[in-house]
Amino acid sequence: MDGATYRAVRDRTEALAAPLGPEDQVVQSMPDASPTKWHRAHTTWFFDEFVLGGTTRPDYRYLFNSYYEAVGPRQPRNARGLITRPTVDEVATYRAEVDDAMAAVLTDDPSPLVELGLHHEQQHQELLLMDAKHLLHQNPLRPAYSAAPHTPTPVDVLGWGWVEHPGGIVPIGHDGRGFTYDNELPRHDVLLQPFALADRAVTAGEWRSFMADGGYERSELWLSDGWYAVQQHGWDSPLYWEPSADRGAGEWDLFTLGGLRPVDPSEPVVHVSYYEADAYARWAGHRLPTEQEWEAIAHPLASEFADCEGTFVDDHLAEGTVVHPRPAGAHRHGGPPRQLFGDVWEWTGSAYLPYPGFAPAPGAVGEYNGKFMSGQHVLRGGCCATPAGHLRTTYRNFFPPSARWAFSGVRLATS
Amino acid sequence: MDGATYRAVRDRTEALAAPLGPEDQVVQSMPDASPTKWHRAHTTWFFDEFVLGGTTRPDYRYLFNSYYEAVGPRQPRNARGLITRPTVDEVATYRAEVDDAMAAVLTDDPSPLVELGLHHEQQHQELLLMDAKHLLHQNPLRPAYSAAPHTPTPVDVLGWGWVEHPGGIVPIGHDGRGFTYDNELPRHDVLLQPFALADRAVTAGEWRSFMADGGYERSELWLSDGWYAVQQHGWDSPLYWEPSADRGAGEWDLFTLGGLRPVDPSEPVVHVSYYEADAYARWAGHRLPTEQEWEAIAHPLASEFADCEGTFVDDHLAEGTVVHPRPAGAHRHGGPPRQLFGDVWEWTGSAYLPYPGFAPAPGAVGEYNGKFMSGQHVLRGGCCATPAGHLRTTYRNFFPPSARWAFSGVRLATS
Amino acid sequence: MDGATYRAVRDRTEALAAPLGPEDQVVQSMPDASPTKWHRAHTTWFFDEFVLGGTTRPDYRYLFNSYYEAVGPRQPRNARGLITRPTVDEVATYRAEVDDAMAAVLTDDPSPLVELGLHHEQQHQELLLMDAKHLLHQNPLRPAYSAAPHTPTPVDVLGWGWVEHPGGIVPIGHDGRGFTYDNELPRHDVLLQPFALADRAVTAGEWRSFMADGGYERSELWLSDGWYAVQQHGWDSPLYWEPSADRGAGEWDLFTLGGLRPVDPSEPVVHVSYYEADAYARWAGHRLPTEQEWEAIAHPLASEFADCEGTFVDDHLAEGTVVHPRPAGAHRHGGPPRQLFGDVWEWTGSAYLPYPGFAPAPGAVGEYNGKFMSGQHVLRGGCCATPAGHLRTTYRNFFPPSARWAFSGVRLATS
Amino acid sequence: MDGATYRAVRDRTEALAAPLGPEDQVVQSMPDASPTKWHRAHTTWFFDEFVLGGTTRPDYRYLFNSYYEAVGPRQPRNARGLITRPTVDEVATYRAEVDDAMAAVLTDDPSPLVELGLHHEQQHQELLLMDAKHLLHQNPLRPAYSAAPHTPTPVDVLGWGWVEHPGGIVPIGHDGRGFTYDNELPRHDVLLQPFALADRAVTAGEWRSFMADGGYERSELWLSDGWYAVQQHGWDSPLYWEPSADRGAGEWDLFTLGGLRPVDPSEPVVHVSYYEADAYARWAGHRLPTEQEWEAIAHPLASEFADCEGTFVDDHLAEGTVVHPRPAGAHRHGGPPRQLFGDVWEWTGSAYLPYPGFAPAPGAVGEYNGKFMSGQHVLRGGCCATPAGHLRTTYRNFFPPSARWAFSGVRLATS
Repeated sequence: MDGATYRAVRDRTEALAAPLGPEDQVVQSMPDASPTKWHRAHTTWFFDEFVLGGTTRPDYRYLFNSYYEAVGPRQPRNARGLITRPTVDEVATYRAEVDDAMAAVLTDDPSPLVELGLHHEQQHQELLLMDAKHLLHQNPLRPAYSAAPHTPTPVDVLGWGWVEHPGGIVPIGHDGRGFTYDNELPRHDVLLQPFALADRAVTAGEWRSFMADGGYERSELWLSDGWYAVQQHGWDSPLYWEPSADRGAGEWDLFTLGGLRPVDPSEPVVHVSYYEADAYARWAGHRLPTEQEWEAIAHPLASEFADCEGTFVDDHLAEGTVVHPRPAGAHRHGGPPRQLFGDVWEWTGSAYLPYPGFAPAPGAVGEYNGKFMSGQHVLRGGCCATPAGHLRTTYRNFFPPSARWAFSGVRLATS
Repeated sequence: MDGATYRAVRDRTEALAAPLGPEDQVVQSMPDASPTKWHRAHTTWFFDEFVLGGTTRPDYRYLFNSYYEAVGPRQPRNARGLITRPTVDEVATYRAEVDDAMAAVLTDDPSPLVELGLHHEQQHQELLLMDAKHLLHQNPLRPAYSAAPHTPTPVDVLGWGWVEHPGGIVPIGHDGRGFTYDNELPRHDVLLQPFALADRAVTAGEWRSFMADGGYERSELWLSDGWYAVQQHGWDSPLYWEPSADRGAGEWDLFTLGGLRPVDPSEPVVHVSYYEADAYARWAGHRLPTEQEWEAIAHPLASEFADCEGTFVDDHLAEGTVVHPRPAGAHRHGGPPRQLFGDVWEWTGSAYLPYPGFAPAPGAVGEYNGKFMSGQHVLRGGCCATPAGHLRTTYRNFFPPSARWAFSGVRLATS
Repeated sequence: MDGATYRAVRDRTEALAAPLGPEDQVVQSMPDASPTKWHRAHTTWFFDEFVLGGTTRPDYRYLFNSYYEAVGPRQPRNARGLITRPTVDEVATYRAEVDDAMAAVLTDDPSPLVELGLHHEQQHQELLLMDAKHLLHQNPLRPAYSAAPHTPTPVDVLGWGWVEHPGGIVPIGHDGRGFTYDNELPRHDVLLQPFALADRAVTAGEWRSFMADGGYERSELWLSDGWYAVQQHGWDSPLYWEPSADRGAGEWDLFTLGGLRPVDPSEPVVHVSYYEADAYARWAGHRLPTEQEWEAIAHPLASEFADCEGTFVDDHLAEGTVVHPRPAGAHRHGGPPRQLFGDVWEWTGSAYLPYPGFAPAPGAVGEYNGKFMSGQHVLRGGCCATPAGHLRTTYRNFFPPSARWAFSGVRLATS
Repeated sequence: MDGATYRAVRDRTEALAAPLGPEDQVVQSMPDASPTKWHRAHTTWFFDEFVLGGTTRPDYRYLFNSYYEAVGPRQPRNARGLITRPTVDEVATYRAEVDDAMAAVLTDDPSPLVELGLHHEQQHQELLLMDAKHLLHQNPLRPAYSAAPHTPTPVDVLGWGWVEHPGGIVPIGHDGRGFTYDNELPRHDVLLQPFALADRAVTAGEWRSFMADGGYERSELWLSDGWYAVQQHGWDSPLYWEPSADRGAGEWDLFTLGGLRPVDPSEPVVHVSYYEADAYARWAGHRLPTEQEWEAIAHPLASEFADCEGTFVDDHLAEGTVVHPRPAGAHRHGGPPRQLFGDVWEWTGSAYLPYPGFAPAPGAVGEYNGKFMSGQHVLRGGCCATPAGHLRTTYRNFFPPSARWAFSGVRLATS
């Protein structure tokens, strides 16, 4: 851990917030989302609290503690958007103050908590984009996060094939070399039946076929809780899809960080819930992979991330375009899977539960992962809003099965 | 109606918004309140829609229509705070555009709707302050709207007396000369029994006695709905009171637009609901006045507003201090009532209902008042946040009986 | 007060409950309604508590106290239907025990609380029918309270006319001779403008015209709260109306205590809320009467109740038929109003508020009326479910403006 | 499948309902519970619909279909308690009618759906007891389901030990010989790490130690969702525990089907949620078993159920006592586990998910299990309210992690 790495991550947060004005940065669009300003302050508080001892701005502890019971009481999660002061400018000052204090710390041999803090901030970079997208979508004017054009490159979608795995005993979880979250530990063996994964993600065009075939109207395709969600929320398409106002009946537009544009049939479907992913897989005659199956395929590919196809947030920033998954393009069937990393998080059929022998990290940061191990499903592989260096093949993301505002998509599996 | 009057009212709105930053101006603290930015845009839209024909920014009609069904659909009231764009600066531009277009209109003989629009904007000036106060209070840091000092001048509170009225047939309602809202019409006679009004408002010190005597704990003092509200919300004092953190048990602080400060026993109590006002009156062995009783006392006093004691928002602006009701000071009993105008709105026991022969104004602005004639109580007399020229003796303000965020206080009556 | 009167009222309750089995008597269909068993026990507890000192079954005090804070804590109102024991039979035993104890009391000069208790029980007789009707309607089989036939007698509906009143000073409220509730006191004078009342209630056929003219779809006809209720609840007709399953589009059936049957255009419309009554009156170009106007017309007619046209619950019991308002029949215009008493309660435009000089009765029974004086509207005249001897011209019934399960209808007024 | 088996199961339902009167049988205490009458009718409808073709009482299909979307619309689950007709007697008639029609069917070679229907009815026998207990507990009089005495036999609780398992590859799931639900299929191999199970269930006395050590007040012991449940519901003890009214501070009573009695420290703790079970295990320094671990221990024991220690509903009926788990008694450590079957369902750490290769049964009964495979945890082993012949070592029960009204307890595991 050196100062340059610290600085790069911290700067990235500010770069992602830059297109958002003070008004955009303060509002909370739903209890699960947080204001941009809060993300910027909370990630800073993480260093302040856990590395610097909470000395920089003690009056911010209550405001910017997220969920650490061991640290103390905090602003209720669903009321983060009522905090108009400190202002956006004052949060920038807070960031600078903590960065100054951290500079001294970083010259020494830093605590592992510094590295944790940076990974934590990278997670919030993705959340910042998810939450900003959700907020902007509340506005009937459908304003864009970024005016940069986002016209998907047309590609031929040549169908897809299976990547087969013979099953057997495979190792799952992180080996402890390099950084890992505690929930990826310990590495352990599992016994898999033979299975196959699709060699790319499900596309928007394929999702259109599901919709056209009554996908959202046929109870037999759905889990009971999922069917209830369909009825309760009136779901008839992925989040951020809406009937086109000007291109005729049956045409759909998609709200992106670049604004509203037509759905591209070749792009991966994104912003679907676990319930929808599961119903789609049932409709298609297949199923979702388990997280162990996913990892068994991914492990051999991931010695070097650079080899992996896929889209991360870094690509967008380099290109000056907006964050969005990309069409997979043509590919030779049966080859290595495409889009395994980046583009869209892939729902797995696995509940988010502790690995055998799991022990949370010591101290308050032990609340980071372990206490959320109920009621959620694991997603794998990262997405177009994930910072590239943040991902690992063993990385376990998790959301409730009804959540749709993550960049979540679908990869099929079969036995 | 001349351009100078128009300009003065419009400028006043901007002056009241000026202490609030973009973050403060965009957030909505509860469904009943609106963001500052929304108030600034909505009052502008009122001229745009009803005088200029909605031509300035047609895409703002949906966003800034409040409740005019005849105009069309609109942003849900409880979601006004999700609209981060147009920004605060863009709203300022909108105000300027409409003001430019209005300038041409004002040189002609203007529509009565211009005058209505200005009174409408004055109402929103008071709402802007109410709503900003409510928002800032959500913040555990208790930030001030204005750093200007607000130290109540100590006064002797010499008790109070009754102003008696012999009853009989009295005229109620506006006589149609000059501006009036439709709900003040038509003037009609009512028969009153002899009664008396207290010659000043109830003070915070008197409210402390009510609290000390178990006022919030004795069900027999309360209407059934009021007692339910006490239990449901945990009311144990007026809104914005909180136990002092540093002055010892039994001491109370008050959140004002100038921040937190000790309660002054000589100031009028403010921010109480109808239920609390009613319970207090019962505890005191008296009752609240009807709106007709209030008006019967006020009519003779009001040929010239300048003669009336009281505090309006103009006084604060002239003095560079913050908006708050003021202690009544000593007074000779039985004289003309103090604080009848300004300081605090006075809850009456009268439900907000149409006068005999009431007819709403024609057109969409007929929705201004009449459709709200259920489930609310009338308040009279204006408050410290009301623009002075906005009030009339016949003016009927109204809020639901559980509302506390208006500058609402209590004047006793007896038969 | 003699024993025969006591016995007659008590027996009437049992006769009204008799068609309902144990299953029907225990279930609560909504928080505002109560189980039959509860009504039978609560009216008994009233004598037990207030006349006998609560000695009969002290363990029932918690279960069957309704809302008397001065008596102590009680089963939550919305959980009355969870009490399966005491059983229906055990409640009958409780009734007999209290009746035995009361027999001794009644031989002495009884407390005025005995008379209050009987009027209280008569009120609950009507509530018992309202609540049973609401419960049975929840059942998709639409079971009847009574299998007795209820085929409205066809009548010619010859239109209607106005009964005029010259206005002036009129006395309102009870004169204190004979029994009265405290909320009818004190008698006082009010000044009325000239007005007229319709000489009969609005019919179902007239309501059909309102519906056909878009009555439930035109926001301009509705109070704001009423329009919200229409949207929230999906109201498109009075409560208990439903599209006919077998008589073709546009035909409506009506659920009554005798089961489902076609709507008779000549019968009074019933089970409408205040919001609907108000919207209808606006659509018809008129308004609802105030309670004072209603009483000014009714006073001269009511020296002897026997002279009044109308339908009370007694008529039904005598005839062995089911409880329902009846068509008004032809009538000479301008004559004395028909249906003023019985048939349907008539919504007035008056909020339920204390009369000038109102004082609640002393003791816990002072909670009977006064504490409900907010958020409700007055209805006048009794209905087909009211015991005949229970009504007075000064009687003030009250319900929230959204309530529809009372036998509430509409009489128009005009200025 | 012969008629005697059919008759025995059907009679058992009636025997369990017999202590409940009509009032008890009709009320629904919460959306998750159902009235006794509904259980009796629904289990009958199951045969009527799936074996007899729905011919007996077609008008009951809507009322008594539980959740079979393929069958059609149905009474909302949370409104089952509003159906007072058919009455309890009419439901008995329905049961007899269907039994008569089934008699003819049973003489032939019956459909496998008959066997499914009987297992289904056995499940509802347990639900009937769970739901009746929950309902009676709502009553502040705490009435007993059965007056039969239930005084736990005092036993010495000698501590407990571990039953060790070496891990390795073990078969999981039913082998298809004899009856099974679809969710126990297909049998498949899993790889287990070495582990150990406690040789008895956690006792009420041990739970008291957890409570005394701040178990319900220390956030670090809880999953995040569990801690939220503690706060939201005010949990401070298992369901049905309450502070003793007469035995002094710190003493607890327990509501059972036999009424209220002191907690016996030697009895298994029951009616705890998954969140509580998980927190207890963390407090104890251990964890909950996975369902595979549980099954790996149970398989070798279960060739003959008669060998298994434990308490099923049959034992209670034979003894004329009430349904309750029993103290485990002294035992030699390290021997075969006690209470593995019967007494209390044992929460496992496993989410309820499909086994590899799972396929739901064909037809509408395919909705029986598969569509509930999200958001729930698996419980194993049956309980004192389970019919003995209903259980298998492969049996997978499931409830949401917040559910407490099942007879659910805790067995510890360790790695």
